[in-house]
Amino acid sequence: MTNTGFDHYQGIIPPVLTPRTADGQVDVESLRHVTAHLVDGGVDGLFVLGSSGEVPYLTTAERDLVVGTVIDEAAGRVPVLAGANDQTTARVVAEAERLHALGIDALVVTTPYYALSNQSEVAEHFRTVRARVDLPLFAYDVPVRTHVKLSATVIRELAEEGVIAGLKDSSGDDVAFRLITLATEDLPQFRVFTGHEVVVDGALLGGAHGAVPGLANVDPAGYARLFAAAKAGDWMAARREQDRLARLFRIVEVIDPQVSPGAAGLGAFKTALQLLGVIESNRMSEPMRALGAADTDRIRGILDEAGL
Amino acid sequence: MTNTGFDHYQGIIPPVLTPRTADGQVDVESLRHVTAHLVDGGVDGLFVLGSSGEVPYLTTAERDLVVGTVIDEAAGRVPVLAGANDQTTARVVAEAERLHALGIDALVVTTPYYALSNQSEVAEHFRTVRARVDLPLFAYDVPVRTHVKLSATVIRELAEEGVIAGLKDSSGDDVAFRLITLATEDLPQFRVFTGHEVVVDGALLGGAHGAVPGLANVDPAGYARLFAAAKAGDWMAARREQDRLARLFRIVEVIDPQVSPGAAGLGAFKTALQLLGVIESNRMSEPMRALGAADTDRIRGILDEAGL
Amino acid sequence: MTNTGFDHYQGIIPPVLTPRTADGQVDVESLRHVTAHLVDGGVDGLFVLGSSGEVPYLTTAERDLVVGTVIDEAAGRVPVLAGANDQTTARVVAEAERLHALGIDALVVTTPYYALSNQSEVAEHFRTVRARVDLPLFAYDVPVRTHVKLSATVIRELAEEGVIAGLKDSSGDDVAFRLITLATEDLPQFRVFTGHEVVVDGALLGGAHGAVPGLANVDPAGYARLFAAAKAGDWMAARREQDRLARLFRIVEVIDPQVSPGAAGLGAFKTALQLLGVIESNRMSEPMRALGAADTDRIRGILDEAGL
Amino acid sequence: MTNTGFDHYQGIIPPVLTPRTADGQVDVESLRHVTAHLVDGGVDGLFVLGSSGEVPYLTTAERDLVVGTVIDEAAGRVPVLAGANDQTTARVVAEAERLHALGIDALVVTTPYYALSNQSEVAEHFRTVRARVDLPLFAYDVPVRTHVKLSATVIRELAEEGVIAGLKDSSGDDVAFRLITLATEDLPQFRVFTGHEVVVDGALLGGAHGAVPGLANVDPAGYARLFAAAKAGDWMAARREQDRLARLFRIVEVIDPQVSPGAAGLGAFKTALQLLGVIESNRMSEPMRALGAADTDRIRGILDEAGL
Repeated sequence: MTNTGFDHYQGIIPPVLTPRTADGQVDVESLRHVTAHLVDGGVDGLFVLGSSGEVPYLTTAERDLVVGTVIDEAAGRVPVLAGANDQTTARVVAEAERLHALGIDALVVTTPYYALSNQSEVAEHFRTVRARVDLPLFAYDVPVRTHVKLSATVIRELAEEGVIAGLKDSSGDDVAFRLITLATEDLPQFRVFTGHEVVVDGALLGGAHGAVPGLANVDPAGYARLFAAAKAGDWMAARREQDRLARLFRIVEVIDPQVSPGAAGLGAFKTALQLLGVIESNRMSEPMRALGAADTDRIRGILDEAGL
Repeated sequence: MTNTGFDHYQGIIPPVLTPRTADGQVDVESLRHVTAHLVDGGVDGLFVLGSSGEVPYLTTAERDLVVGTVIDEAAGRVPVLAGANDQTTARVVAEAERLHALGIDALVVTTPYYALSNQSEVAEHFRTVRARVDLPLFAYDVPVRTHVKLSATVIRELAEEGVIAGLKDSSGDDVAFRLITLATEDLPQFRVFTGHEVVVDGALLGGAHGAVPGLANVDPAGYARLFAAAKAGDWMAARREQDRLARLFRIVEVIDPQVSPGAAGLGAFKTALQLLGVIESNRMSEPMRALGAADTDRIRGILDEAGL
Repeated sequence: MTNTGFDHYQGIIPPVLTPRTADGQVDVESLRHVTAHLVDGGVDGLFVLGSSGEVPYLTTAERDLVVGTVIDEAAGRVPVLAGANDQTTARVVAEAERLHALGIDALVVTTPYYALSNQSEVAEHFRTVRARVDLPLFAYDVPVRTHVKLSATVIRELAEEGVIAGLKDSSGDDVAFRLITLATEDLPQFRVFTGHEVVVDGALLGGAHGAVPGLANVDPAGYARLFAAAKAGDWMAARREQDRLARLFRIVEVIDPQVSPGAAGLGAFKTALQLLGVIESNRMSEPMRALGAADTDRIRGILDEAGL
Repeated sequence: MTNTGFDHYQGIIPPVLTPRTADGQVDVESLRHVTAHLVDGGVDGLFVLGSSGEVPYLTTAERDLVVGTVIDEAAGRVPVLAGANDQTTARVVAEAERLHALGIDALVVTTPYYALSNQSEVAEHFRTVRARVDLPLFAYDVPVRTHVKLSATVIRELAEEGVIAGLKDSSGDDVAFRLITLATEDLPQFRVFTGHEVVVDGALLGGAHGAVPGLANVDPAGYARLFAAAKAGDWMAARREQDRLARLFRIVEVIDPQVSPGAAGLGAFKTALQLLGVIESNRMSEPMRALGAADTDRIRGILDEAGL
């Protein structure tokens, strides 16, 4: 149960999907396959219990099963980060302590949600979590879900205080992202990751340290090549790989009007992994519905075009 | 551990505050005092673990302690409704089963949050909770927190199916509220409550069955008089009482700029109850800050004007 | 060109629809019919160039034609208020001066829009308009269109300064509306109107002076009865009339998915007036599309139920 | 009065500020200086009557004066694009016809605003404007002001139909921006510009044709160098220039809490140009307030650091 001591997070750290069996249970075997698919694809870390891992839909027992399985399968080859996802501070601390005991390498925590917070409470929230749980802490900015935008000022403050080790930005606010990257460039330990699949080349050009793309579940090797090209300074190669991946990302343009925004992207990733033979079923957590035949056919066509 | 079999919910059902001691623990003694203050004030039910009860900030153990305490103190004189508050269906069911075992009379459940749902998932969510937990189920529409508005169509559907026994509306959308009240008036079992403190007279005139006002923690007898006047058809008396309560509601206009939107209203209610001698401390759940001296003085003045 | 000197605005002041001929011109004859239909129905004033009058879609020449026609047809029997609708202060003043010259009795002005304002600029905006144009000025709070909510503080300030004579509230925020009504009750000249069709009984019970309901184009006599009942203190009669009108309001639940939110409500009002023989065509301003046969049939059914 | 026949828009096309004299008139002399400053700085076009040009605050006469002045001063060296900014279609057409007669080279048009539109009306809006005014038409996506996001589907459709010649994107949605760039790359005439000052390097790497940065009013030569570096494939040079400009962009972080969001950025640009001796006054259009001494000092410090 020791934590493996990674300290320089960078590169591609996909949010790991949580496969389910056709009858709705967490599919441990398929989860091992996803994990192996990602590590073999060359990713630099694994982020479990993220939004793409359907964390809000998992029971506590399921969350523990997912974390334990991925840690076991990863076997220390790459760090395992995990989301301690709950409404507010005390509940997040409880969640984080449980995950810590399971052996994760780092925590990923959002702002409070459902609560009606201000930036001063948000800062206090991260300080308290960090003080009570001895793990590197990444702030996860996802206002489309939390309806709070982490301010650049608070991020800079928490970074300077050593409270947070980095940021996963899924805010869709590329202007703020660039300004944050610039504002923290003199903090050599601080790490900035984009959560957006199709702008990784520009983010890396602008100084980001890596990406947490859900689409990397489908094509980890593609993202690994994109990151390698950027590291090597071959920006046109990075862009070409990014354009290829952006075309692949069209799998999320779901045509079934019954599918919710939350189920569309994740359902597309699951359906693609099912078509690629990595997981058994594209079943979603209740009450989300899985993609049907029309979307499956559409996705098969896009995978073919992408050479997958 | 039996449920007490109330079935005609109506009137004033305050969302019960959760007092804390000065060092941050749930203050069981003060919670008993609040409960007695409400029941003695003439309310028709108690809603625990609502937003005003700081439910997103309470640990699981604290939630159970609150529910157990209020049930014990209420001693069957009025029904106890409780919020099963979590992100999505499976987690809400787990929460609801635990609360059911504690002996509550009815469940109050919001739409999923943090999740990105559509109305069809929302309907499925309520159906699943009702199917798995055998208690009257009230839908709680609070888009300022969940960022999902329950549609009138879904409410009508769930009411007709017998899935939900009623609605607590904190949506701030009085037009939709009136249309929902009208659309369900032919369902004699269905109950519609407003969650807004200062428009109860108009809501009752428009056919609502009651209210769930946070401010009733401070002045339960005032709201009981307002409801009685409306029942008796003395609408000008109802309005005068409502105007008095609306003036009292100005306690929430907090002047300390550091206090968050979430902490302002609840902090004002707690501070008022502290000034009235009902609870020991106006301490808030972390990371919310309590109101300070300036706001306390301001609130004392308003209580005086209101004759409390 | 004199203004008629009305000063105690109260009661039902419908936002007058702007009919178009089948080929898209402003239909002067039908506009005269609407005006007569409203005055004969017992309304207390006419509000031209409101959102329901399609003001953002009218050219400058069309705006002048509408104002001139309604003033002429009303012939001083009721006051004519007009919206001076443009993006910011200087442009609103230009608009207001032109309308003043046409002989309107009062101005209705929104906050700036498209601009990114704060409340201090908003207050300055109203002060400047009032200082430059010598007409009673009503503030029109319609954040669904302007994306700025007029704060209660600013309204109270402007009312005390005598800058604004009243408020037309279409904010959908009934809590703020009640608090504003209460906060201005000691200013005997100040007038508060709700813009929402289905909550007029509650608004009047709470102290509002009248309503500006788009639906009153369809049934002015119904709203006149509702107001008279409230004035007489017969609140249950007011509620029954309001319930009847709320059922009639279902005409806006348009089933054609191609129709925009803006075109749905206005299209329904126009279609109803066409069915009632008041106007020739239900044609909308470009690029809005008129309601088709299916919605027309649906609306005919609702009119029948309402006894119109 | 002939249009100059530019057809391959690309590169840096700043939204030209509108200087005012200390007593609030449009400052024609300073506007000539800004124009010369930009053209001499190496920009590729001039966009007048944009949001940065304070278009919502200018009277019709002022709009004409601005356009005439800039066209005259530019003297055909670079194309002049102009915003035809009004609420809906018929009013935009009237505006566009007037600007066309003044000799502009291309039109820039937003979605309708204040209106409550859907995407089908938005598409119709652009089609109608293009059909009635014979000028290249750029769609300007600025949901922070219009509260409508142009959908990728509509943009692709309008581009394919030849209705729009390009897009100016100020949506802050970099994911959609990349997907639109990719979706239109097979339309060789179609031009995609970012409106965001600090992500131009990434946007160009991702295939954008240029940028419309307000900050280029302050440092046109810097943006010209950034674009030249990107064109030459020297991406690290582009990034260094972008980082320098992103640091300069901190001038918009206004400390005066009275200044509105709209006035902050534009006020900072004007204050910087005043400090650089390009314009006489940093006066803003009413009701916006100019920056004061504290912000002026702050900005002077940032200009010094930037070597301006």
